[in-house]
Amino acid sequence: MKAKLRYGMVGGGPGAFIGDAHRRAISVDDTARLSAGCFSRDFEKTKQQGEALGINPERCYEDYKEMARIESQREDGIDFVVVVTPNASHYEVCKAFLEAGIHVACDKPLVTESAQAEELKRIADEKDLLLMVTYTYMGHVTSKYVRDLVRDGEIGTIRTVMAEYPQGWLYNENDWGGKQGEWRCDPSQSGKVNCLGDLGTHVENAVAMMTGLKIKRVLAKMDVVVPGRKLDDNDQILVEYEGGATGINWTSQFAIGCDNSLRIRIYGSKGTILWFQENPEEVKMIKEDGIPRVIKRSYSAITPGAAKYGRLPAGHTEGWLEAMGNLYDSFAECVYAKEMGTFTEDMIDYPTIESGIQGLKYVEACLKSNENGNVWVEV
Amino acid sequence: MKAKLRYGMVGGGPGAFIGDAHRRAISVDDTARLSAGCFSRDFEKTKQQGEALGINPERCYEDYKEMARIESQREDGIDFVVVVTPNASHYEVCKAFLEAGIHVACDKPLVTESAQAEELKRIADEKDLLLMVTYTYMGHVTSKYVRDLVRDGEIGTIRTVMAEYPQGWLYNENDWGGKQGEWRCDPSQSGKVNCLGDLGTHVENAVAMMTGLKIKRVLAKMDVVVPGRKLDDNDQILVEYEGGATGINWTSQFAIGCDNSLRIRIYGSKGTILWFQENPEEVKMIKEDGIPRVIKRSYSAITPGAAKYGRLPAGHTEGWLEAMGNLYDSFAECVYAKEMGTFTEDMIDYPTIESGIQGLKYVEACLKSNENGNVWVEV
Amino acid sequence: MKAKLRYGMVGGGPGAFIGDAHRRAISVDDTARLSAGCFSRDFEKTKQQGEALGINPERCYEDYKEMARIESQREDGIDFVVVVTPNASHYEVCKAFLEAGIHVACDKPLVTESAQAEELKRIADEKDLLLMVTYTYMGHVTSKYVRDLVRDGEIGTIRTVMAEYPQGWLYNENDWGGKQGEWRCDPSQSGKVNCLGDLGTHVENAVAMMTGLKIKRVLAKMDVVVPGRKLDDNDQILVEYEGGATGINWTSQFAIGCDNSLRIRIYGSKGTILWFQENPEEVKMIKEDGIPRVIKRSYSAITPGAAKYGRLPAGHTEGWLEAMGNLYDSFAECVYAKEMGTFTEDMIDYPTIESGIQGLKYVEACLKSNENGNVWVEV
Amino acid sequence: MKAKLRYGMVGGGPGAFIGDAHRRAISVDDTARLSAGCFSRDFEKTKQQGEALGINPERCYEDYKEMARIESQREDGIDFVVVVTPNASHYEVCKAFLEAGIHVACDKPLVTESAQAEELKRIADEKDLLLMVTYTYMGHVTSKYVRDLVRDGEIGTIRTVMAEYPQGWLYNENDWGGKQGEWRCDPSQSGKVNCLGDLGTHVENAVAMMTGLKIKRVLAKMDVVVPGRKLDDNDQILVEYEGGATGINWTSQFAIGCDNSLRIRIYGSKGTILWFQENPEEVKMIKEDGIPRVIKRSYSAITPGAAKYGRLPAGHTEGWLEAMGNLYDSFAECVYAKEMGTFTEDMIDYPTIESGIQGLKYVEACLKSNENGNVWVEV
Repeated sequence: MKAKLRYGMVGGGPGAFIGDAHRRAISVDDTARLSAGCFSRDFEKTKQQGEALGINPERCYEDYKEMARIESQREDGIDFVVVVTPNASHYEVCKAFLEAGIHVACDKPLVTESAQAEELKRIADEKDLLLMVTYTYMGHVTSKYVRDLVRDGEIGTIRTVMAEYPQGWLYNENDWGGKQGEWRCDPSQSGKVNCLGDLGTHVENAVAMMTGLKIKRVLAKMDVVVPGRKLDDNDQILVEYEGGATGINWTSQFAIGCDNSLRIRIYGSKGTILWFQENPEEVKMIKEDGIPRVIKRSYSAITPGAAKYGRLPAGHTEGWLEAMGNLYDSFAECVYAKEMGTFTEDMIDYPTIESGIQGLKYVEACLKSNENGNVWVEV
Repeated sequence: MKAKLRYGMVGGGPGAFIGDAHRRAISVDDTARLSAGCFSRDFEKTKQQGEALGINPERCYEDYKEMARIESQREDGIDFVVVVTPNASHYEVCKAFLEAGIHVACDKPLVTESAQAEELKRIADEKDLLLMVTYTYMGHVTSKYVRDLVRDGEIGTIRTVMAEYPQGWLYNENDWGGKQGEWRCDPSQSGKVNCLGDLGTHVENAVAMMTGLKIKRVLAKMDVVVPGRKLDDNDQILVEYEGGATGINWTSQFAIGCDNSLRIRIYGSKGTILWFQENPEEVKMIKEDGIPRVIKRSYSAITPGAAKYGRLPAGHTEGWLEAMGNLYDSFAECVYAKEMGTFTEDMIDYPTIESGIQGLKYVEACLKSNENGNVWVEV
Repeated sequence: MKAKLRYGMVGGGPGAFIGDAHRRAISVDDTARLSAGCFSRDFEKTKQQGEALGINPERCYEDYKEMARIESQREDGIDFVVVVTPNASHYEVCKAFLEAGIHVACDKPLVTESAQAEELKRIADEKDLLLMVTYTYMGHVTSKYVRDLVRDGEIGTIRTVMAEYPQGWLYNENDWGGKQGEWRCDPSQSGKVNCLGDLGTHVENAVAMMTGLKIKRVLAKMDVVVPGRKLDDNDQILVEYEGGATGINWTSQFAIGCDNSLRIRIYGSKGTILWFQENPEEVKMIKEDGIPRVIKRSYSAITPGAAKYGRLPAGHTEGWLEAMGNLYDSFAECVYAKEMGTFTEDMIDYPTIESGIQGLKYVEACLKSNENGNVWVEV
Repeated sequence: MKAKLRYGMVGGGPGAFIGDAHRRAISVDDTARLSAGCFSRDFEKTKQQGEALGINPERCYEDYKEMARIESQREDGIDFVVVVTPNASHYEVCKAFLEAGIHVACDKPLVTESAQAEELKRIADEKDLLLMVTYTYMGHVTSKYVRDLVRDGEIGTIRTVMAEYPQGWLYNENDWGGKQGEWRCDPSQSGKVNCLGDLGTHVENAVAMMTGLKIKRVLAKMDVVVPGRKLDDNDQILVEYEGGATGINWTSQFAIGCDNSLRIRIYGSKGTILWFQENPEEVKMIKEDGIPRVIKRSYSAITPGAAKYGRLPAGHTEGWLEAMGNLYDSFAECVYAKEMGTFTEDMIDYPTIESGIQGLKYVEACLKSNENGNVWVEV
């Protein structure tokens, strides 16, 4: 059923990491078939990539707008598009496909300003289209299990959330991290923000998704630490949530020894939950007896809404690609239901455009707080 | 290049776990395209599965022998077949495809007796064909890294190897583990051996592949422990390797708390290496200073021959499917090279028919040792 | 030599935890012999405790001032006094013994206001006396090893320090933690501060001792979270150090699952060091190759200035009492050297009155920051 | 009460590790006061040590037999003696004190042959005296908790026990481990056995104490591995217990990276318990839901019979000295009760002479099995 879906891709040319990752994530479950693409600004590269991927040459497009137009008119046109271009062009590309009536899956961050995101939302709503923002980490069975535990009151009322996402790859002032690092550290490509946009939005999204808490205000200290850098590479942020819970969000790019260390610790009135992205097969929960329990992806304790995304039995590890695959599983199911007329809102189990908007508002509030000398700013 | 390869599958009908896993593992790298199949003894199910997988109906076969014959004659015939039928039929199926001149990837255990495996080897050699046995765990980057560390003398001469593979899923005398467990525990389907055949062969293969050691003799205690069972569910085996190293191999199916706990600990004259399948993203090595070092899949310390199999950057976990995918990556490269006439033996980086033979001889020697009252038996 | 030292104790009556702990810590190395005491405000209890501890009855005192006076005049009088009374009386007791010319070891926090601490320092300096504040955790071999690693430049310039000390014992609004909790949560006994005074001062001291950094300013959010409490039970504090390093200090008393989780993470330009009080036998260090190394208390890599405090070989764990014992080892050595006239400043390897003063200034600055709406306050 | 007990020591002269450790362990709880000693064969050293320890010079003895005689006659004579001489002399020293009517605490191994141990038992029984063998690790709160869990049926019927005690300090053929290693590796001092006597007896005792299982028979492979050694340094032993449970005991002295890694894993019909000496503050238990739970020394889940030995609150670590101190706590309580006439057998909570006998029989059976080519030998 879902296997009959067709998708197109904008971006993801030869050597591009993230486009490749999206394709693998979709193919691991055979969720949809890649049928069209505008993989590069360079048409030769698009054609070359199309051939390597076995795409019909006439569906390899020089221009994404043309792709949107033509695919929306083909009888066998794509059901959704995957947008994996550089961040600065997300807005224009997403807009083109939404306006052509095609559902969109867009890599994070969705766009660069919340106003753009609001505009995309307006179009999507008007056209009754779906837009997913691929916050990969929320695809893990364990992330969804944490969400269910909190929602079901297993740890009572949340009191404080310690969230962090340190990386270490940009610690060296003489090493700008290659292609991936250079554009992130370059204000002309990244705007006003580096680390917080790349990592901080994941933190914000993870806490929001897992706890359901909404940020009321932030007090942000955004520092440029490694000599020679021009944008933030260490962000230490006090957070107040609606309802009174507090928290700290920390992101860094120079934390040697941290590969990709998104870690969420949620302290409630009846228990604590610990989740660590680098060990995504398990959740640690401590309840009032103080005894840590480790619950793994495939254990019978896992809630049905999370367990259904698992593929392999206990002790057979799943990883990052499978997490992204899970997002596409839900998204494709929703796209298919839209087409069949069976869609309902409660089917959505992926980060929507709302998540994209919240992430951008979070970044904007932090920037304002930092510019004003580390004062509280409402989100 | 490799993407142009076509493969067929025997077994892997609707609901079959392992066939599904092989298909995912191949698709995660787009290593080859599924083009033909005989997915079930029930032709209706084969056709149904073929449709679900988008296979040309005329290449959905009622009989695997017919499939072997026809595919070997088609111009666009399959380059290799994946055999994921129940163990008892592996021999006949592999033989049919080898005799038809088609390369074979077969799930482990290859066959049920070493004589059968020798026969398959004879045919494959005669026809100049490749046969891979999919010992999944040896596909991990970290497994290959351990192999390279040992080969490069990083831990000196190996003195003893503590290897174990406990699972817990069959601990309960009133729970036979569903379909998966029932045939394993049934002598009429599994022959003389259960736990040792299922898990012990993985242990044997892992130690052989990582250390290069050959077993000289074994002293096996194979126990039937859980009430009601008729085949071994706990095996504790003393091992002597050629050259004098010793070891213990332990496998169990009632070890509560062990999901799939293949763990290899290698003690050498200059250091120790620890590898644990449930944490396949890292290797722990301790050298003469006694300080444990943890090296992860994507670190620069990883040897090139292992690192080349990684897909994702540090901190983005890969898992079991990717490990199996790595086996197929090497196998497909070799199949392609065979076709191009560029194949050389040193390209092989997957478990061959020799591994399958060794596994069977290990099981046969253990059975003999146990039947004779736990005495030493040469392998 | 050191065994000939005699000490007295004020506080530490029957059932008092901390006095008992100090006595054990001193006896584990036979560092000094308990020879006099004023263990309780209730003279009967003092006499009873004195008998239980084998103290000469005539050296069991009804009044600590009398004890200070008489012991300072006896030929076999105590060499130092250990002050383990409730915090509010530390100032008066320490002052009495200093004025009598007796060295002092005082439990932390030293006093309740920095002005008092400055006064004690003035007296001690004037009388050429030693005063130790027993920040236990800094007695660990591993704490001292971290200090040495940082001092020796092993991790380059410090960039940020993530320090935390969450506990969970006061999470329950209906459970005030017994005697220990009740006075801490009671403004009439604890003044303006609870969690930050109890735990925050340990954090401040640990970072100061390990890194040598001095706090320039703080921005503190001190929250009263558990319903019914009147004093802070969760403190989240942004810190700026002289020289530009930043940090976050977090302390909490409702973090379920955290027993006594003082954890210091130090990120430098060339490496990272992780130290965790609940696992005090090891230090984790990651240098530029990204590979975590775990160095244990008794390994040859440990610096001599830290290693000298170890008692047991590798794998024989030492704990909290031994850490406190280490503080007394250094203190007693200094006291003895003072008496012998061989004392030099560089012999001091325990937290001095300066540490006490810094801790109080830290608390005072945090209180001011919090009262003024979470603004930066210079320390 | 207990503090009024007096003890003497034979062995434990200047620089001796184990005598020092026993003294610290006794003093950490002020369990008894050292009042007499024959610390060395060299009377000068005995006097010197006596002075350092503050012993009355007339109770520093040149000869242990004289000490036994005189102390047994003094009104203020010692209540028990601690024997920490080299193993070969344990028998004679213990015998002398037992015959003089003095209770004995002896370091392990008790003696060198089971017949000697039986003889000591005969004397002790005849004289109604207590004899403790200080298997330190069984003093931990957590060891006792494991015993209670098994006894209370928490993990059902035990099926297999994987026990190991690898060390790495003697891995290097050019390093004989100093004084400690040299006598162990020297047949003229150690007899027929090295590693198994030193470490294997701890393994045997730990399993016996924790599980209550009695060994029925063993099949032992005892290897001399490091070049130049003459006694076993690696022992891999199959065990069968009465009642049908099985197990493997592994001890080694060349396992690089293992400091002192006594680890016991107990697999039962309803759960699994894991205990690791290097992390003695916790027990991991997994029951039928497969979820690992970590229970720490001071948690309310700890059984009363184990919890009573704890000194410090959660998160304040206790270690090896405290474990040995716990043995002395129980022993001293029993000695005192004997003197008061209130002793009952159920007060004993320390390893008795029976443990010593079992350990020796275990070693003797293993030696016989190994000499006969790795065959089963009844214990």
